[in-house]
Amino acid sequence: MILVNGQRSDTVSALDRGLAYGDGVFRTLRTHAGQPLWWRDHYAKLAADCAALALACPDEAGLHAEVCRVADAGQGVVKLIITRGSGARGYVLAAAQAATRIVLAAPLPPHAQPEAATDVAARWCALRLARQPRLAGIKHLNRLENVLARTEWDDPAIFEGLLCDSSGAVISGVMSNLFWVKAGELFTPDLSQCGVAGVARARLLRAAGRHGIRTHIGRLLPDAILAADEVMLCNSIIGVRRIAQLDGVTWSPAGWTDTLNTILYEDVD
Amino acid sequence: MILVNGQRSDTVSALDRGLAYGDGVFRTLRTHAGQPLWWRDHYAKLAADCAALALACPDEAGLHAEVCRVADAGQGVVKLIITRGSGARGYVLAAAQAATRIVLAAPLPPHAQPEAATDVAARWCALRLARQPRLAGIKHLNRLENVLARTEWDDPAIFEGLLCDSSGAVISGVMSNLFWVKAGELFTPDLSQCGVAGVARARLLRAAGRHGIRTHIGRLLPDAILAADEVMLCNSIIGVRRIAQLDGVTWSPAGWTDTLNTILYEDVD
Repeated sequence: MILVNGQRSDTVSALDRGLAYGDGVFRTLRTHAGQPLWWRDHYAKLAADCAALALACPDEAGLHAEVCRVADAGQGVVKLIITRGSGARGYVLAAAQAATRIVLAAPLPPHAQPEAATDVAARWCALRLARQPRLAGIKHLNRLENVLARTEWDDPAIFEGLLCDSSGAVISGVMSNLFWVKAGELFTPDLSQCGVAGVARARLLRAAGRHGIRTHIGRLLPDAILAADEVMLCNSIIGVRRIAQLDGVTWSPAGWTDTLNTILYEDVD
Repeated sequence: MILVNGQRSDTVSALDRGLAYGDGVFRTLRTHAGQPLWWRDHYAKLAADCAALALACPDEAGLHAEVCRVADAGQGVVKLIITRGSGARGYVLAAAQAATRIVLAAPLPPHAQPEAATDVAARWCALRLARQPRLAGIKHLNRLENVLARTEWDDPAIFEGLLCDSSGAVISGVMSNLFWVKAGELFTPDLSQCGVAGVARARLLRAAGRHGIRTHIGRLLPDAILAADEVMLCNSIIGVRRIAQLDGVTWSPAGWTDTLNTILYEDVD
């Protein structure tokens, strides 16, 4: 089911600025028995991303009701898209622009099924992310870099591609955030220049704080990953996955993926 | 009138990748008496942009017929959007993805009417364009930088904002390409790292070659503009406009805008 501005519809205006310019933001979240997982985090991030682009964020209760309305009875995925709405041609914003709100359900992908392997293989992407601090961290609709990076492989055994920025710093996976552990301390890239600061990443950082795991967010280079004890991917759909193989390099489990997968789901905030 | 894949429609699929990721390209062209201006240039650029993103480009004759079908009888604007079509959630491309083709007519904007002033005022934008050689030059649907830059002013007396990249090099206007003349020679920024390489720019460069005007394309800094004899904007809708004022700086006409406006429309290729 797809709801567009609260009405069942499969279409949006051909003049929507989300289509014309990618002028909008989105969220992808898991649902269980018709309810969204981590709703408070997702709504807070949606509101922050809307604010960063001066988009009107939908009311929380109304949006939550729409998510529940489209969500599958079992396990599923819901995607939310908020755009600046349809408008005249040209970059300038109309004085009063009514946002477009799209809420749609999708099945849980095979790689997110409970029986999917926790260990995955990854590769380095050749594409380098551009550094744009005005858009960094935001899950906006300008995602051509991710699309192009994802075309670099079609081997189904490769779960994810890792991305560096134009300065050579490690940023993230194509569809996930990146963590690793070295000598008992947690590392994740700074996302102030590019990348998407996901909800699972934010939850892991808070959980690490609660559990006294020392955490470093900074400009980190690919060598740091190769020297890590355990390297992990995360997002709201897959939770935490261990990178067992990265091009020619392999790692044995050091136990951190299970730990982080446990504390990621703690419902204490 | 709007044609979506050749059929009259005001809407596109809510699952279109043009909306989800900005996964597509576009063109904006002028029409006169139901015919597109500079069609060969626009189609060639559309085909090149599609190729750069591995999008299937529509057949030229069929697309031309659709442009003529939607075009106003008088002066007008037609916008073309080609997206990768609708698909499943996720960045990965489907094996056979049918593109979405949107052709729509819009009225000629006031600033492009024949009686509009040739001289305009511009300002510098604070936003810096990110450097992404994989997307530079392409008129793709990831245009949040342009949207954000255009929010920097709402004074209707300001026609355009000028943009530098993150390295400090001048790139373009928000909706136009930039040329200037110094001591009888023409300058325009290199667009290999960011910006859109428009059809009017390409036509001006060819025309300058035909007329023996020495031309420099390179990494150029804002100081070079301030020292120029005449500074001009161009795109397919407005032709060439002279910047008479740029923040506190003013220029008197040196005759180049009329010259370039003449040679831009020569139909010799």
